[in-house]
Amino acid sequence: MRVKFVIAYDGTDFRGWARSPGHRTVQQTVADAIKRVSNEEVEVVSASRTDSGAHARGQVCHFDTAAPIEPAVWPRAMNRVLPPDVAVLRASRVSIDFHSRFCAEDRWYRYRIRIGERDPFASRYSHDHGKSLDVASMQAAAEALVGRHDFRAFTEELQAHIDNTVRTMRRATVKAVRDEIWIEIGGTAFLRGMMRRMAGGLLEVGTGRRPVETIADLLTEKRSEMHWPIVLPAKGLCLMRVRYGDPPRDCRATAAGGRSDESDRLDRLD
Amino acid sequence: MRVKFVIAYDGTDFRGWARSPGHRTVQQTVADAIKRVSNEEVEVVSASRTDSGAHARGQVCHFDTAAPIEPAVWPRAMNRVLPPDVAVLRASRVSIDFHSRFCAEDRWYRYRIRIGERDPFASRYSHDHGKSLDVASMQAAAEALVGRHDFRAFTEELQAHIDNTVRTMRRATVKAVRDEIWIEIGGTAFLRGMMRRMAGGLLEVGTGRRPVETIADLLTEKRSEMHWPIVLPAKGLCLMRVRYGDPPRDCRATAAGGRSDESDRLDRLD
Repeated sequence: MRVKFVIAYDGTDFRGWARSPGHRTVQQTVADAIKRVSNEEVEVVSASRTDSGAHARGQVCHFDTAAPIEPAVWPRAMNRVLPPDVAVLRASRVSIDFHSRFCAEDRWYRYRIRIGERDPFASRYSHDHGKSLDVASMQAAAEALVGRHDFRAFTEELQAHIDNTVRTMRRATVKAVRDEIWIEIGGTAFLRGMMRRMAGGLLEVGTGRRPVETIADLLTEKRSEMHWPIVLPAKGLCLMRVRYGDPPRDCRATAAGGRSDESDRLDRLD
Repeated sequence: MRVKFVIAYDGTDFRGWARSPGHRTVQQTVADAIKRVSNEEVEVVSASRTDSGAHARGQVCHFDTAAPIEPAVWPRAMNRVLPPDVAVLRASRVSIDFHSRFCAEDRWYRYRIRIGERDPFASRYSHDHGKSLDVASMQAAAEALVGRHDFRAFTEELQAHIDNTVRTMRRATVKAVRDEIWIEIGGTAFLRGMMRRMAGGLLEVGTGRRPVETIADLLTEKRSEMHWPIVLPAKGLCLMRVRYGDPPRDCRATAAGGRSDESDRLDRLD
């Protein structure tokens, strides 16, 4: 039986999602808890491999189990053994064709920037800017990101070898919420570090250091001419939701692909 | 010059307010930051000595300084050197007669109990109950706490030697807020552990284990007959606000008192 979880975690004390020997990761922590519940060693696959320190309120993952456990029983069973910084919010049985990463229609991220006085209760979950920002200009710049574009300016230089850096963003909004600015972007798939660089570029616009139109320019300029956006810290980032079709798209063909590069695989979903 | 701070802290990684050799405490952390700003060794006195793990959004403290620093400059200067889990929200110059503890008119605490699904972003700041509670009964029981009463049933047994355990509560409310129950109690002064025991007694009422009227009984029964309320963990507790008169009451006489027991001293303010 394939089981799908919706999970939330405070990423502060995790070295990201992906298993990494010697480090505390969300993937390993969830797998360890499943082992305590069902006595099985499983591979847990997520929709997004969040960075070290990034958070999730609606991460999705799946795994296969032979244990005779009703889906409705999983959340309580898991939450009894999981540490307090991770929780299973919902569980459901899905088709064996379902794949949390390859079937995802889109992902929605929020980046929080604090502009007000420091707040010890927000410091783990937001980037402290501490000064006001020009939200209207940020919103205008964000609109340029919507649509199908080449986002090579927003990925890590280490990954410059990736052939296809074209992705589709469905919406991008910037809004003031109490003492914070929230940048919310939803798209089919994201390159590594992309959300933190889009937030960085928009922050530069908000401070006046970067003209609004240069965000659109980043989508068309030659790499050699680019004025690269800064990358903001992972702690301000949260994966809010992953959306699937109903029923989920047929993603078997994609899932069967042998290449291991997530970004490259994701690309086929655009 | 005497300076008053309003400060906030996430108490999770502190061993409470009061200085304690070998432990990370809020009092020492604030004093260390003042030393970095003004190069002075000062004694920082707070309105409330919060427990290990308890939080504050509106703690008040004061200290004396000879540094020629305008009050308005203090918050930014402090927040540059303080760790991210403490922040100075406001600073003001006060009379040399002002004493954050002895001049306080009342203190307002909130205790958060989670009744909904687990939330990794709330687990540091609330007690996980995970089941629904009878809020109407809790509210009815809380009303019995308002007024001038002997609260000996709500203090630590170790402190049973305290002569005067009479305190005055000005209001006590219980309300449902999203997936949580918030118990908010304001009073002139609190005995050690009192807020966490009042929350514990009300939680017992909410689960049906304790009849509503036994909360009132706890205020009048003989110690030997008492069915003591449980004490809830500090992490759910937050000092929201400390209120002073305008101008603050004259508290010099009280402050000059030589006894070192906080609860005992506080008692004179009732």
